[in-house]
Amino acid sequence: MRVSYEEMLNEFKRILLKRGLDEATAHEAAENFAQTSLDGVYSHGINRFPRIIDYIDRGVIKPDAKPECEMKFGSMERWNGNLGLGNINAKRAMERACTLAEENGMGIVAIRNTNHWLRGGAFGWQAAEAGFIGICFTNTMPNMPAYGGKDSKIGNNPFIISLPRINGEHVVLDMAMSQFSYGKLEEYRLKEKELPIPGGYDHEGNLSSDPKVIEETKRVLPIGFWKGSGLSIVLDMLAVVLSGGNAVQDIAKEVQDEAGLSQVMIAIDPKKFNTADQIDEMVSRIVDDIKSSDVDEKIGRVSYPGESTIRRRKDNLENGIPVVPEIWNKIKAL
Amino acid sequence: MRVSYEEMLNEFKRILLKRGLDEATAHEAAENFAQTSLDGVYSHGINRFPRIIDYIDRGVIKPDAKPECEMKFGSMERWNGNLGLGNINAKRAMERACTLAEENGMGIVAIRNTNHWLRGGAFGWQAAEAGFIGICFTNTMPNMPAYGGKDSKIGNNPFIISLPRINGEHVVLDMAMSQFSYGKLEEYRLKEKELPIPGGYDHEGNLSSDPKVIEETKRVLPIGFWKGSGLSIVLDMLAVVLSGGNAVQDIAKEVQDEAGLSQVMIAIDPKKFNTADQIDEMVSRIVDDIKSSDVDEKIGRVSYPGESTIRRRKDNLENGIPVVPEIWNKIKAL
Repeated sequence: MRVSYEEMLNEFKRILLKRGLDEATAHEAAENFAQTSLDGVYSHGINRFPRIIDYIDRGVIKPDAKPECEMKFGSMERWNGNLGLGNINAKRAMERACTLAEENGMGIVAIRNTNHWLRGGAFGWQAAEAGFIGICFTNTMPNMPAYGGKDSKIGNNPFIISLPRINGEHVVLDMAMSQFSYGKLEEYRLKEKELPIPGGYDHEGNLSSDPKVIEETKRVLPIGFWKGSGLSIVLDMLAVVLSGGNAVQDIAKEVQDEAGLSQVMIAIDPKKFNTADQIDEMVSRIVDDIKSSDVDEKIGRVSYPGESTIRRRKDNLENGIPVVPEIWNKIKAL
Repeated sequence: MRVSYEEMLNEFKRILLKRGLDEATAHEAAENFAQTSLDGVYSHGINRFPRIIDYIDRGVIKPDAKPECEMKFGSMERWNGNLGLGNINAKRAMERACTLAEENGMGIVAIRNTNHWLRGGAFGWQAAEAGFIGICFTNTMPNMPAYGGKDSKIGNNPFIISLPRINGEHVVLDMAMSQFSYGKLEEYRLKEKELPIPGGYDHEGNLSSDPKVIEETKRVLPIGFWKGSGLSIVLDMLAVVLSGGNAVQDIAKEVQDEAGLSQVMIAIDPKKFNTADQIDEMVSRIVDDIKSSDVDEKIGRVSYPGESTIRRRKDNLENGIPVVPEIWNKIKAL
């Protein structure tokens, strides 16, 4: 079953308006959910939408809260997200980082006390769409053991870097620090398939590609073993020191809910040193070189970050966004 | 055989003075090589020193060149490294990024036309020692295939993030985008040992832990497969767009030498929003939580980034820096 972008956007907006969001904010939030679905990241778009509404209904997310600047110095600001809707808070913070970059060459907004931003890549696309380099990251609840550990102490802390291109086919890296998300493990388990590469450890502490076993041990693997583990740790430290907010260890501690996150949005204005044409040429030249690789047939293709998003976006715009009928019906009833 | 820090420093300095460096620069450069060795990163300290001297002798590195600012806007500068000594250029660039951060909260210096910075972590330690958050990265010659490719199109582009602690035991992540360096592969091969985890592909395109086979295929693995491949690509793009310098594909193209690199140094001043005590507490609290992990005995320990450096530094300060006698004799004869 496929639903058009417009229909999905309107449905999301209807539900958010019903929860008391003002017209403009409901539109922006609905747009974020619909675009994320359009880009094929269903786990953080349509499939996650009912949980966000549940968070609003239970008061975990405050739908009418507005983020506020608490401190500022030069090109750097610290905000309080006031537990508002995560995707709106993050969008506002990246907008402001871009304005600071416009004025100073670069800008940072660190935001504490915010909520899950859904797809982090959205804010990378946002910065690139406005002509900026975007760098952003968030912490999460503890959902992965540090390398060498057995209990979940670190977050998968998604990390995003984006660069603009004139044709809108921006380069956007959007990566979590875990090799596979729990959503991906579930997907493989339901299909009764092995992971293509090891994704965690089994009960004996050996590397495993069995999604079911890894779901049981909860020992998911950081990318690059000790390296991704280290990167996850320092991203949490940066988010906490800059925002003054919760660390990974503080999140979902007394309650189940992943709320009160710390995030950092950085924008850099490359147009201060280059024309838009020069930026485009520099970025596209690297893309072209990567794409000229001698492809390993076993893997099938070489991609640059963001390439598959563009492919899925075009397909979904033309043919509609694939939805699971039960989820779509559930949303229509909200 | 072990050599004291002072003796090594003086030996390096003697040789650099002989190559025409002025007193202050020779001291700083020698200090960088000696500290890198003291911290146990021999591959980028003492073991690399003869090659750097060879580069100076052959005119690849210009020992008396000074880096120059070419463009500036707000908290952002673009420099030309004039093919000077890489560790000196990078140190100057990070110093300037810290000054910009002092003034604006954050600062970037992007430098083109520079040389190998030796150990990237040195500039993370430098920023942290001055009380700043440091983020820096460099591109390299093509030395790794992009995920899905067979020919080397991307660099291992080391990426560094550091945060300060009051006791000087700073947190410093220093990671290349390859799971193992060629130096590490050689080390395992010489010991006739398998890698602890797959580090690349064999001749049939299967994952392999055999260092010798990976050296042959040159198909080293990016950390996290497609993820580290993507991160390497965007770091190259950032370095090129901000510095205006060479991309990975341009380096060591017509000559063997890895010269004319592009690098980015970012400093952020966390003291604008926190006291030094608060920063220390936030960082140390995360360190303590990681260290309280339930350790997997097969792996043996859970570390935070920079922890092993401190351990090796203390050992080498007390007992001298281990040197391979042939290398030490070669250096004494330079």
